[in-house]
Amino acid sequence: MSDNTPLRGIFTPNIVPLDDRGDINETELRKYVDWLIERGVHGLYPNGSTGEFTRFTFEERRRIIEIMADQTRGRVPILAGAAEANTRETIKACEHYHSLGVRAVAIVSPFYYKLTPAGVYAYFKEIADNSPIDVTLYNIPMFASPIDVPTVLRLAEECPRVAAIKDSSGDLPHMMRMIAAVRPVRPDFAFLTGWDAALMPMLLLGCDGGTNATSGVVPEITRKLYDLTMAGKLDDARTLQYRLLKLFDAMLYSAEFPEGFRAALRLRGIVTGTGRQPQSLVQQKELATLSDQLQCLLAAEGFTDQPVGGCPVGESVDSDQVTRIVQTVVGELKKRGMA
Amino acid sequence: MSDNTPLRGIFTPNIVPLDDRGDINETELRKYVDWLIERGVHGLYPNGSTGEFTRFTFEERRRIIEIMADQTRGRVPILAGAAEANTRETIKACEHYHSLGVRAVAIVSPFYYKLTPAGVYAYFKEIADNSPIDVTLYNIPMFASPIDVPTVLRLAEECPRVAAIKDSSGDLPHMMRMIAAVRPVRPDFAFLTGWDAALMPMLLLGCDGGTNATSGVVPEITRKLYDLTMAGKLDDARTLQYRLLKLFDAMLYSAEFPEGFRAALRLRGIVTGTGRQPQSLVQQKELATLSDQLQCLLAAEGFTDQPVGGCPVGESVDSDQVTRIVQTVVGELKKRGMA
Amino acid sequence: MSDNTPLRGIFTPNIVPLDDRGDINETELRKYVDWLIERGVHGLYPNGSTGEFTRFTFEERRRIIEIMADQTRGRVPILAGAAEANTRETIKACEHYHSLGVRAVAIVSPFYYKLTPAGVYAYFKEIADNSPIDVTLYNIPMFASPIDVPTVLRLAEECPRVAAIKDSSGDLPHMMRMIAAVRPVRPDFAFLTGWDAALMPMLLLGCDGGTNATSGVVPEITRKLYDLTMAGKLDDARTLQYRLLKLFDAMLYSAEFPEGFRAALRLRGIVTGTGRQPQSLVQQKELATLSDQLQCLLAAEGFTDQPVGGCPVGESVDSDQVTRIVQTVVGELKKRGMA
Amino acid sequence: MSDNTPLRGIFTPNIVPLDDRGDINETELRKYVDWLIERGVHGLYPNGSTGEFTRFTFEERRRIIEIMADQTRGRVPILAGAAEANTRETIKACEHYHSLGVRAVAIVSPFYYKLTPAGVYAYFKEIADNSPIDVTLYNIPMFASPIDVPTVLRLAEECPRVAAIKDSSGDLPHMMRMIAAVRPVRPDFAFLTGWDAALMPMLLLGCDGGTNATSGVVPEITRKLYDLTMAGKLDDARTLQYRLLKLFDAMLYSAEFPEGFRAALRLRGIVTGTGRQPQSLVQQKELATLSDQLQCLLAAEGFTDQPVGGCPVGESVDSDQVTRIVQTVVGELKKRGMA
Repeated sequence: MSDNTPLRGIFTPNIVPLDDRGDINETELRKYVDWLIERGVHGLYPNGSTGEFTRFTFEERRRIIEIMADQTRGRVPILAGAAEANTRETIKACEHYHSLGVRAVAIVSPFYYKLTPAGVYAYFKEIADNSPIDVTLYNIPMFASPIDVPTVLRLAEECPRVAAIKDSSGDLPHMMRMIAAVRPVRPDFAFLTGWDAALMPMLLLGCDGGTNATSGVVPEITRKLYDLTMAGKLDDARTLQYRLLKLFDAMLYSAEFPEGFRAALRLRGIVTGTGRQPQSLVQQKELATLSDQLQCLLAAEGFTDQPVGGCPVGESVDSDQVTRIVQTVVGELKKRGMA
Repeated sequence: MSDNTPLRGIFTPNIVPLDDRGDINETELRKYVDWLIERGVHGLYPNGSTGEFTRFTFEERRRIIEIMADQTRGRVPILAGAAEANTRETIKACEHYHSLGVRAVAIVSPFYYKLTPAGVYAYFKEIADNSPIDVTLYNIPMFASPIDVPTVLRLAEECPRVAAIKDSSGDLPHMMRMIAAVRPVRPDFAFLTGWDAALMPMLLLGCDGGTNATSGVVPEITRKLYDLTMAGKLDDARTLQYRLLKLFDAMLYSAEFPEGFRAALRLRGIVTGTGRQPQSLVQQKELATLSDQLQCLLAAEGFTDQPVGGCPVGESVDSDQVTRIVQTVVGELKKRGMA
Repeated sequence: MSDNTPLRGIFTPNIVPLDDRGDINETELRKYVDWLIERGVHGLYPNGSTGEFTRFTFEERRRIIEIMADQTRGRVPILAGAAEANTRETIKACEHYHSLGVRAVAIVSPFYYKLTPAGVYAYFKEIADNSPIDVTLYNIPMFASPIDVPTVLRLAEECPRVAAIKDSSGDLPHMMRMIAAVRPVRPDFAFLTGWDAALMPMLLLGCDGGTNATSGVVPEITRKLYDLTMAGKLDDARTLQYRLLKLFDAMLYSAEFPEGFRAALRLRGIVTGTGRQPQSLVQQKELATLSDQLQCLLAAEGFTDQPVGGCPVGESVDSDQVTRIVQTVVGELKKRGMA
Repeated sequence: MSDNTPLRGIFTPNIVPLDDRGDINETELRKYVDWLIERGVHGLYPNGSTGEFTRFTFEERRRIIEIMADQTRGRVPILAGAAEANTRETIKACEHYHSLGVRAVAIVSPFYYKLTPAGVYAYFKEIADNSPIDVTLYNIPMFASPIDVPTVLRLAEECPRVAAIKDSSGDLPHMMRMIAAVRPVRPDFAFLTGWDAALMPMLLLGCDGGTNATSGVVPEITRKLYDLTMAGKLDDARTLQYRLLKLFDAMLYSAEFPEGFRAALRLRGIVTGTGRQPQSLVQQKELATLSDQLQCLLAAEGFTDQPVGGCPVGESVDSDQVTRIVQTVVGELKKRGMA
């Protein structure tokens, strides 16, 4: 795998299977890597937000990359999440992952503290100037300090190592502004979207690919959506984008992220184990319900059987009833001082 | 009433009673004015947010001020909400209200469009330079363009007519920053808080008073809280502030603003009529429930009898149960693409 | 013009030309209507946000529609902004505009107060049940109470008069969720985007058209972008979308909305007059600078000559310098207690 | 130090001095601990947000507590920040810090991912059920998942180990709502504010103390403000609160947090070293300017000499000029596509 393969296509941000003790399940992780590659994803993206990088220790994050690089054996490029506690630790991670042969690292903008553009710039500049491997900026403003257009442009101009941006804002005009600003000065720079709900239009407007959580669960669909869109088969692509949106919404909004994706992945036959973020009893019951609904969606796509109780025909929820219940509950809550 | 009475104490932002056809109920409005003055509020503040100024026509807003000025007959100062569609119309309103003898006008920062500080400054500057009457800036950042500290300072320095600010942000350090900036250059400038939940500490830190919606419903309590705080009786004031907070939260958060205040006012014997913003069936049922709860709170303060069904002893809601219901409902909602 | 022409294509939200006294310039407004229709817009959309409906009085808003309906004489359909102080006044406006022969009204969600979905539903339900004319919901969450997907669905199901939504959120997946929810039950329902920056992808994903402020200034471009996209000429459409984005951003973000659009319109030969929102000296200087930049952009599109001083070749701003200045200024500001 | 000393008074969230290589400067940290205790702070709070806990490795965080516990030798209680990558690691940290004799741990709500109340509850429940030491909930909604009132109440009711909350929202009514909900069922529960700007009113409304970053720089003032307020000397306390606000704002808003506090601490004679977050050239120049301004503020309080160039007499900044510059710059920025 040459160092300068273009970053293009669908990179899968993978969940990490855990065993009964909550430790990394290496066997299953290796199996999952093969499963994904066999289903056509263009690359792998461990230690991303879907991969819950913040819930692992430094040592565990390293081990995840080591296992996956070893298992992949160059079949597809790896984009390794490398953000650590500070720039020194992050640069160490870049060096190590480079020695393992990954294609590039992805580094999320500083989080917890919300930095100004000047701080975000200084952070990435120091890392990029000391990294032996290509760096992908990771912009996810709902979780971390935003990386604005001028900062992307400046880093692209000053740092040859900064080779791509992964943007999970889902903001299409923002993506266009970045492309319009950066492409003229860095034609090699890659633009990846992390927002599955807008994958097709993002590609149509000039993105090179995506790092999409759905591709970890239904790689067949995400890959096919990429292929149809790039081939200009708009009618088929549009239909598929709407179907993917339905799946994406169900996995994203029905449970604490990324529990919906974990539940769906389990239905596809990967032994994910239980996540590290504790779930209350209420949440556990909800996840069970969600799992049945996801099974219906996956069955509709031909990936699983229907759940034992069967699936509803068409839309069966009475929206009026739901609204009424919600109003009552919200009223109760407000009386008790909740926002 | 001299033109330069200091703006000090509790100014009541009054709801406007409506008749069966949804028109201004003049008789009841006059009765309400007397009721408030008799219960000790220091001033009246018609056409504020509680007064739903945006839901009346220009002609109606004028008529509300005319009725109230006539009924008040100088017993207490009036702070008249005067914001209209543009500066020309607003200045006309200032002139008219001045001719009616009101003490000052209050003008909310431009809303709908969110203006920059430069735009907010230009707006108030034009009005203040042409108003024959003192102008109170009205800062309510949750609804309108924020008025930041430098803008308040600049207007206070350049415009003698800008005589006060009513701040409904509820942000205590923000209030302190305004006081620290403006008092040295304009010792006469008045600072009023619109956030009943923090009335006592606002007064303790230097505010001159408040425009508080609770004073339209329980003027006895809001006035007493003011008196106790200004007299330095901190223990009694603290207890009262906590009781007022409970009432305030119940009226503010349990229904679409200002329906909770309207429901409570009805319990005090003012024939408010029905508000102009339509309420769905669900909301109407909620309001009925809320009304019973408000009646219990008002009964506990000695202002009404308990409702027919009686009142709960202590806290009777099972928070765990509420949480469980909410989780289920939110799950349902998310599956349908909401929030 | 039949009552049920589909709402399709580009509807122009027009600025209202004013004379030296700040009153409606009827002659110029009539000229502007002709100018727009001659340049190919599919419809007109007076009294929208670009039309600054909040800065006119009720009487003025009526007069704007009367003039435009008279001048249009059925050549293109009119979508008339009809939001007034309350539902009673709004229904009156619907009746009047219906009598003038406009195709439909557009009603912005309640603003100033932020309503819950139940309140938004009740508001539109009451209007739709009493309107003699088709109603377009207008969702613009940055300015007004958001209209969520279940509320759109419920109104579409219950109210035959609710015939369309204009969505200015710019959120593409949100638009897809609405289309996915509503089309199966109301195939006639129209989806219009108000976000010029994403017009092409919105159309590709199923929107019927747009109400786009750029079409009031460069109707030739917005219309052509619509035609190219609907014809599936993606490469040409993409290029045009990027050019439109540049113009849109310059007009939208360089001045208080809609001053940038007004300045550009002036360069196209429409005598707009000065807007009603006062501009500080600083803002006036900025507008002069912006006007030159807009003239360069319009000259590049062939619509005007270059300004007297000529236009820069390529990007001439030193972003590093700008960043440095900003840092210093922001530092100054923060020291003085600003956000 | 008994295990159940009430958590009361001012706990200092300390910055960690670093040496030239960026490693923990143990000698200076020990000196700083003594310096703080000698100046009267009631307790120490290492590994908080001011202590930049996210920028250290797990091993470093442990070492910081070990050094400080050893140096403190029970003179004052220690509240040890103990949040780690997941609950298992966090519980291990609780155990270790317990063995070192600290009074309690403080655990920030989950960050990066924004959890729902149910998730926040489950997280703290698992930790509290397994911790051998008292747990302080740490609510800082600008950085981490908010902990709402019902969640605090539920944890207080169910978990004896949950003994306090540190709230850095600065929202006074929110603090009152927590106190009103929790005190009746857990009279021993402590409420600490992390918002120095509102320390006096928070104490007056019932807080037990604060974890205040200013106390790490001017412990004499923060402590005195606590004493004056608790003694009911309101006039003196008010004046001091205003002075503290000025210092707090200067340190908080003039540089990337916590660089302003670090710069000021250096002026007090503590060799802080350079922080781990890289600073751009622009930021470094700003910090130098800020340092002079802080020196003037500290000199005015008698803690340092004036800087070489002297200090301005009164307010010397021309706000009008600043506004003008800002407008120009913001205009420039917007033209380049920045928000």
